Amino acid sequence: MTDLSFQQYYQKKLESFESFLHASFQKLPAPVETLEQSMKYSLFAGGKRIRPILMLTTIECSNKNSSFALPFACALEYIHTYSLIHDDLPCMDDDELRRGKPTNHIKFGEDIALLAGDALLTHAFCLISQSAIDDATQAETKLKIVHLLAEKAGVFGMVSGQVADIQNKIHIDREKTLSFIHSHKTGALITASIQIGALLAEVDEDTYNCLTGFGEEIGTCFQIQDDILDQIGSTEKLGKTPGSDSRNETLTFPLVYGLEESANLANTHYDRALEYLKSTNLNSERLREIADFVLKRDH
Amino acid sequence: MTDLSFQQYYQKKLESFESFLHASFQKLPAPVETLEQSMKYSLFAGGKRIRPILMLTTIECSNKNSSFALPFACALEYIHTYSLIHDDLPCMDDDELRRGKPTNHIKFGEDIALLAGDALLTHAFCLISQSAIDDATQAETKLKIVHLLAEKAGVFGMVSGQVADIQNKIHIDREKTLSFIHSHKTGALITASIQIGALLAEVDEDTYNCLTGFGEEIGTCFQIQDDILDQIGSTEKLGKTPGSDSRNETLTFPLVYGLEESANLANTHYDRALEYLKSTNLNSERLREIADFVLKRDH
Repeated sequence: MTDLSFQQYYQKKLESFESFLHASFQKLPAPVETLEQSMKYSLFAGGKRIRPILMLTTIECSNKNSSFALPFACALEYIHTYSLIHDDLPCMDDDELRRGKPTNHIKFGEDIALLAGDALLTHAFCLISQSAIDDATQAETKLKIVHLLAEKAGVFGMVSGQVADIQNKIHIDREKTLSFIHSHKTGALITASIQIGALLAEVDEDTYNCLTGFGEEIGTCFQIQDDILDQIGSTEKLGKTPGSDSRNETLTFPLVYGLEESANLANTHYDRALEYLKSTNLNSERLREIADFVLKRDH
Repeated sequence: MTDLSFQQYYQKKLESFESFLHASFQKLPAPVETLEQSMKYSLFAGGKRIRPILMLTTIECSNKNSSFALPFACALEYIHTYSLIHDDLPCMDDDELRRGKPTNHIKFGEDIALLAGDALLTHAFCLISQSAIDDATQAETKLKIVHLLAEKAGVFGMVSGQVADIQNKIHIDREKTLSFIHSHKTGALITASIQIGALLAEVDEDTYNCLTGFGEEIGTCFQIQDDILDQIGSTEKLGKTPGSDSRNETLTFPLVYGLEESANLANTHYDRALEYLKSTNLNSERLREIADFVLKRDH
């Protein structure tokens, strides 16, 4: 696949992921139709699938075919989707628009949206622990992945980030609070995506640690860029109301550092991410390209 | 322990469970204090712990010491507690009182309550997949338990039961709808408690199937009794507003069958549960006593 441009590569990974996600959702049949529809609505609302693709690409950088890992990639997207649904609820960000479409609770009601989120989160663990899907991966590895994902999505990651975001001041200084919020709210699951890829590719400990560092840096990069885009973006491109974060007094990078300094910070984290990649023996060009994509995206 | 009365036995199991739950929660330290307090508030609000104790007792009926299984018992209670917090939210049952105390969202706000529920659910999978806790249990068994719990708590169980409960009519006839709601909403996790005990005790397939049958029958029994108590109980004993289910037009056993016939139904399911137990070679007296307790409880 080295002769493909990055766009072609990303498109190819995206297509194989989408097709697997569809097929695996078809097999799901939730016994209650409304629940299935509500889960499906948000799961197939057309995201960038950055977490699954980061994970699959991490495996390919070890010169391995990543298709065996698609169920794990789906689990990441299920968890990411659940977090968006709950985040949009009236008692949270109260957003009515997500990716240009009505949010889940606007379409299905708050109660169904809440439960669809719960179902997506829970089903992620079902996907990882299926024994039939993938005989190549040892039970020990799958169990490590369950544990990692539960840590990074739960009290040691995403959920704590959300709570800190709501409270808006867990440290006296704003920089530390901002850093905590984003390393947990967004960074944890992005880092976990890369770590899961690393576990599935069975890389050595040093490589695992470098990839973890890479994940943390591009996680930060991703969030800074998100904050910048939210500040300067338009509804059309983002598919959500721009500036909604600063309106709710959420701590953002532009708010704390200003726009220009935020862009500099993103570059610093990007550089550090590349340093980590260089320290590995991986064929890591595609991961570098994803880091580029994260930094340069406009939506 | 056969010389203990049932009350003494239950109390002893309850104490060892509570003490383990406290100790394991102490080790948790959630990085954000409010989240920890909110999780703790509902986790230690004084439930009957029927799911953990059913699970531990299932293991003891195979003449095994159940203490190695306490982390799995905690996971069950984490999931049960999450379901109560989300169920009480304004967009769901909108309950202000649970076990005689303000519900989680009344105490901490809707946003924190939602996230505490998410964290409890997620952390349950962390507890099961910890490698250090219990070397005796094979990774394969732990993975089976992850899968079973994700199925029974998610789209193939509890969450579908909740959605069906909200929609109130997934079959044309009320009896079928009622049966679907309760076998999923309450029955699935109660059955899973016994199935997890059976997996940890490594019983043979026939015994596993009988225990599953027992679990399904007492799950139904439990729900009928809950509905009856809700109909006739007082706020003082239940710790929640009585009759709140019928006020919201939820389908209940007394509503569909009347009070007397509901009591008969509970007895029928109790008898079937005992039949299943008799078909095993287990030392199952304590499970029978729990079935008695479920049928005869007044709160």
